[in-house]
Amino acid sequence: MTSSTEFPQTVFRSGGRAATALRPTRLVPNFVATAEGSVLIEAGNTRVLCNATVEPSVPGWLRNSGKGWVTAEYSMLPRATLTRTPRESERGKIGGRTHEIQRLIGRSLRSVVDLKALGERSIILDCDVLQADGGTRTAAITGACAALALALNRLVTAGTLPKSPMKELVAATSVGIVDGNVLLDLAYEEDSQADVDMNVVMTASGGLVETQATAEREPYTRAQLGLMLDYAEAGIKELVLLQQQLLQGPA
Amino acid sequence: MTSSTEFPQTVFRSGGRAATALRPTRLVPNFVATAEGSVLIEAGNTRVLCNATVEPSVPGWLRNSGKGWVTAEYSMLPRATLTRTPRESERGKIGGRTHEIQRLIGRSLRSVVDLKALGERSIILDCDVLQADGGTRTAAITGACAALALALNRLVTAGTLPKSPMKELVAATSVGIVDGNVLLDLAYEEDSQADVDMNVVMTASGGLVETQATAEREPYTRAQLGLMLDYAEAGIKELVLLQQQLLQGPA
Amino acid sequence: MTSSTEFPQTVFRSGGRAATALRPTRLVPNFVATAEGSVLIEAGNTRVLCNATVEPSVPGWLRNSGKGWVTAEYSMLPRATLTRTPRESERGKIGGRTHEIQRLIGRSLRSVVDLKALGERSIILDCDVLQADGGTRTAAITGACAALALALNRLVTAGTLPKSPMKELVAATSVGIVDGNVLLDLAYEEDSQADVDMNVVMTASGGLVETQATAEREPYTRAQLGLMLDYAEAGIKELVLLQQQLLQGPA
Amino acid sequence: MTSSTEFPQTVFRSGGRAATALRPTRLVPNFVATAEGSVLIEAGNTRVLCNATVEPSVPGWLRNSGKGWVTAEYSMLPRATLTRTPRESERGKIGGRTHEIQRLIGRSLRSVVDLKALGERSIILDCDVLQADGGTRTAAITGACAALALALNRLVTAGTLPKSPMKELVAATSVGIVDGNVLLDLAYEEDSQADVDMNVVMTASGGLVETQATAEREPYTRAQLGLMLDYAEAGIKELVLLQQQLLQGPA
Amino acid sequence: MTSSTEFPQTVFRSGGRAATALRPTRLVPNFVATAEGSVLIEAGNTRVLCNATVEPSVPGWLRNSGKGWVTAEYSMLPRATLTRTPRESERGKIGGRTHEIQRLIGRSLRSVVDLKALGERSIILDCDVLQADGGTRTAAITGACAALALALNRLVTAGTLPKSPMKELVAATSVGIVDGNVLLDLAYEEDSQADVDMNVVMTASGGLVETQATAEREPYTRAQLGLMLDYAEAGIKELVLLQQQLLQGPA
Amino acid sequence: MTSSTEFPQTVFRSGGRAATALRPTRLVPNFVATAEGSVLIEAGNTRVLCNATVEPSVPGWLRNSGKGWVTAEYSMLPRATLTRTPRESERGKIGGRTHEIQRLIGRSLRSVVDLKALGERSIILDCDVLQADGGTRTAAITGACAALALALNRLVTAGTLPKSPMKELVAATSVGIVDGNVLLDLAYEEDSQADVDMNVVMTASGGLVETQATAEREPYTRAQLGLMLDYAEAGIKELVLLQQQLLQGPA
Repeated sequence: MTSSTEFPQTVFRSGGRAATALRPTRLVPNFVATAEGSVLIEAGNTRVLCNATVEPSVPGWLRNSGKGWVTAEYSMLPRATLTRTPRESERGKIGGRTHEIQRLIGRSLRSVVDLKALGERSIILDCDVLQADGGTRTAAITGACAALALALNRLVTAGTLPKSPMKELVAATSVGIVDGNVLLDLAYEEDSQADVDMNVVMTASGGLVETQATAEREPYTRAQLGLMLDYAEAGIKELVLLQQQLLQGPA
Repeated sequence: MTSSTEFPQTVFRSGGRAATALRPTRLVPNFVATAEGSVLIEAGNTRVLCNATVEPSVPGWLRNSGKGWVTAEYSMLPRATLTRTPRESERGKIGGRTHEIQRLIGRSLRSVVDLKALGERSIILDCDVLQADGGTRTAAITGACAALALALNRLVTAGTLPKSPMKELVAATSVGIVDGNVLLDLAYEEDSQADVDMNVVMTASGGLVETQATAEREPYTRAQLGLMLDYAEAGIKELVLLQQQLLQGPA
Repeated sequence: MTSSTEFPQTVFRSGGRAATALRPTRLVPNFVATAEGSVLIEAGNTRVLCNATVEPSVPGWLRNSGKGWVTAEYSMLPRATLTRTPRESERGKIGGRTHEIQRLIGRSLRSVVDLKALGERSIILDCDVLQADGGTRTAAITGACAALALALNRLVTAGTLPKSPMKELVAATSVGIVDGNVLLDLAYEEDSQADVDMNVVMTASGGLVETQATAEREPYTRAQLGLMLDYAEAGIKELVLLQQQLLQGPA
Repeated sequence: MTSSTEFPQTVFRSGGRAATALRPTRLVPNFVATAEGSVLIEAGNTRVLCNATVEPSVPGWLRNSGKGWVTAEYSMLPRATLTRTPRESERGKIGGRTHEIQRLIGRSLRSVVDLKALGERSIILDCDVLQADGGTRTAAITGACAALALALNRLVTAGTLPKSPMKELVAATSVGIVDGNVLLDLAYEEDSQADVDMNVVMTASGGLVETQATAEREPYTRAQLGLMLDYAEAGIKELVLLQQQLLQGPA
Repeated sequence: MTSSTEFPQTVFRSGGRAATALRPTRLVPNFVATAEGSVLIEAGNTRVLCNATVEPSVPGWLRNSGKGWVTAEYSMLPRATLTRTPRESERGKIGGRTHEIQRLIGRSLRSVVDLKALGERSIILDCDVLQADGGTRTAAITGACAALALALNRLVTAGTLPKSPMKELVAATSVGIVDGNVLLDLAYEEDSQADVDMNVVMTASGGLVETQATAEREPYTRAQLGLMLDYAEAGIKELVLLQQQLLQGPA
Repeated sequence: MTSSTEFPQTVFRSGGRAATALRPTRLVPNFVATAEGSVLIEAGNTRVLCNATVEPSVPGWLRNSGKGWVTAEYSMLPRATLTRTPRESERGKIGGRTHEIQRLIGRSLRSVVDLKALGERSIILDCDVLQADGGTRTAAITGACAALALALNRLVTAGTLPKSPMKELVAATSVGIVDGNVLLDLAYEEDSQADVDMNVVMTASGGLVETQATAEREPYTRAQLGLMLDYAEAGIKELVLLQQQLLQGPA
């Protein structure tokens, strides 16, 4: 990696997007009427349906602890991708990538929920990718946080909880290095050419929850890591604003 | 079953629907951009996403036969239902109901395709239920037929096939007996109270492809079977019109 | 389908069988000594062993409901067929066809049992095909109904139940259209050439429990459906007589 | 174990059977018409259906070796036993006992077949227990050897092989120590009380193929092992006579 | 088999080992610090790590019986063998050989434990093969018995049990016939050429627990069986001495 | 998190270890003789056996690409931990944590191998944890890199490859924040109390390959992330020295 990453002025992104720009992103509340909290997140061509389910019990190892649990499941519809991906239900097992992603989503959401205040109930966030164009796991975190907030608000409205146990919002985005340029919110095409791929999960108040930077081709430097974090922080602040708009709207 | 089924004038259905009326039904083409044919079907609160995939090979037992294959997979998102249904991928196996439904969809679609004219290629119809309120398997047939037609038309447009191997359209609906009344296109609430539950698959020209009538509580008579078929035929004719509109539109 | 189905005088069936005739059918009680009810049914070359097991518990969703449950499992020995079929236990999962059949058998039997009167116990009907020559699922229903009746009678004899919770007998047969002719009780060879394949499940008093007609090659008309039902009804009446003989014998 | 095993005069066996006597044993040829070789073996109340399948290929590791393969699969119908045993296909996996038994059957049969002379074909012996009363694995070996011989003879009759590649017959029985007495061919009730349980597989010419003696409660001595072998040898000679009768009959 | 087995003076074994000699064998206590009893057994190049776990519960069918249970699990690391063996966890199921071995280990250990005196607790012996050169199952029995003894002694030291419920030690070895010669404790190379392969499990006082002799190529005679037992008994007496040394050492 | 992380002078670690100190770490070459490369790594009480297998083929999607592949499998022996962990082979599936770890190990190793120069062969690194006390995944990377280097050197020695396709060494360690103090190379006890847990994978020349920092309890700041990276870099430099010593020794 000899090219400088400091002056990324020569990048051409689809739609004339700037290196520091998120894709057009939209959060659609109540996409299905059946779930306690439902948000469809669209980030460019990536579309993930995030549905929250409140269940009145906790996993065995939390029973009688007074604490609740938040977990996530992630899946892609077979034709979310340009080439059909066989269903994991047909293959009879969940793949490694799926496991990794749903563990990441669950961990990220638990970081902003007071599990003691939630009480002995579980919330499952089902994140189903309807269309995939890169960044599905970070979109799932951002959308699932909004769906979780809706479901918790509903527990407050119903009088089940005195106040929402969500401490603050959390959102996520990806960032990467392509041809020596740091780019925010990679689309699939960009992601497949990236030398480094990073996911950042951050709370509304700026606390880091997860930073994971992977060299796909070439190792990276501390300086590059810093620059990627700068881009990601800016993007996440924008995403939190979208979450706040949705939650102030007529849920 | 002592009450007469001939005069169903006293039925009250949600939204004032007549016993002989379909729910408001809509076919949305190209719901995802990634599939060769994509149709979202909405029948009342039931929403099924039907995506067609064209693959250049056939199952082993058809190799070198010169014939193609059409098959289907069916699944429900966990929160398609009011109570969350665990994923079949998590349980590691496909349930009996799922198998039964995807076999029915595949059989129905094959009945209207000239597999010889299709040549040695497979078309997979993925039917994923986003929201369920009864009648998901018949909605899947109606929607999948439209998605299949779009995918086949695309093969013609691309010059891969001289003409579409679809012989005619096929659609399906449910019909049942509730409190002695024959009702068309049962919603979930009605279905769960039905004494008899019937699915009918019929071609545009009126040929029967599948008739399956199941007594859930009480056996039924030949006369009742006839009446149910009358209702279903009327409903299916309407559904075929919707399919035709979609196919004449700007696909 | 241009040939008329009204005058099937030109059909030649194996053994000179008439279009309206069942294959030679025999019900052998107590084929194994280990089960609470055991019947071997032979219909031509098809042989199915039907064993009933009474268990003192019900599935979770029926606990404390005061109601019982009747269910079925269906399997073929690997060499029931001319070409060996691999075991589902070796493949590690139950196939779609098996699921569909055991759901049908269970549903059919439950339609004639007063589950409230059965009380909180389960009856499992194991239907194992020793030799297959078409019509195994309908033979299984007819044989399993007899095995179930034997098991219920034994509960009465033992004083566990005051009277049998079986409301009436139920039996089943297949019927189809081959070369334009309606034929009763298809053997494998006939079934593989059939344009339409129908299974009918009917109670002793003539109530329809399940009618399922599938177009394998060409759609069928309402008139053809009616004729197939006529044939099936006649056949099932005969089968019920065989069940009654068995139950009046020295069980 | 203080009682002497030398004078077993005080044993009372069901039906007044002597300590050295086999149960009434019968080999029924051609129990199903669908298999290349089919034998039902009845040993007392134990009934095992043994069907041979000839397949024109061998497992991967034998391809192009010029050698054939003989293997076995073993299963019990759920109600072969007094208490119902769940199907392994439902549990999704084969149990340890089943694996052990089918490996034993395969090994025993291969010991008497010239795999080179068989050529690159496989023979699968399906051993399905219809009714179980002890000794199912040894009955399976004895019955499967007869079914295998029938299938190989058929290959000779068809001109596929110049002569049968079976070098000699092989049969098996169990023997055990109950209350200090050596008993031949244990029924289930006896087996469950045995201190030592032994299976012996021997060829027609008296060569030992497998001897497996397991202390279930108390260790055993060399002298006891010798006595058990004496009993088993006598029993197996009788079983080989039954096999020879079957093979000389009108197969 | 024409060569005499009585004078095996011409055998050349790796390292000049006598036909009657065990491989250099070593028992290393406390190989891991995490288990209640841990022994690494090395027999020539075969190395098996045997770890005992004490659990405070028993399988369902022993609950409220006042009796305990001893069981074993056996596995090979992928590179225990010269050619890598895929993990059973990756294949999603335990193979037949593994089942057979772990059942044998469990049975052998239970034969020397007073399960009543153990009380309602389970001991699991994990036997993991780090390097395999023949005889892994018999090495596992010998090593697991020592690990079990250590774990039981620890229960006595902790005051949980008044005295060890182990009645005596048990050990195992293999013996076989290669080129007409009886050889003790076969290494992999020898085992793969053996005509007969035998495993013997014997208690310290000389009681036989399991004798299993399998003809891999040619049947064997009673005389050969006797000679194999002679060799095995001598080898096992030596192994018991090693176990006793370990248990008298500073555990 | 109110306490300062800059002055961690008050931390007491087991064995008086400094906050910036690795645990005593040892790399034992050729732990098994059966693998192409074998290294046992001991980091404190954590012991991981890393074995490299060279296979002459690549996964399907790399065939005819001229490129090789490096992958890893990770597993823990049941008693690597103080409480026994059931085997994944018994449960019939690989857990999410295992998938995540083996993907991380594979990715890390591939970052330092020239896959083109490796040619169409696969190297599998089996990482089996014999004893676990925190940091097993990072120990596995460090040990597996050494085992991989040994295996590649052997391919050079054998003349299969002209020079080793390993571009440089790679090693990994963990770092975390406990009670406000940054600590290097967390033992299990420390890890379970950590607010933040970070894994760093770095090449010998200081390039970052993977940085993954997870907030377990409280979010972390950019400053804390920087400090953790400082500690990790120092530790990894030391680990690379150990790898170099091993590779210069008599392999």
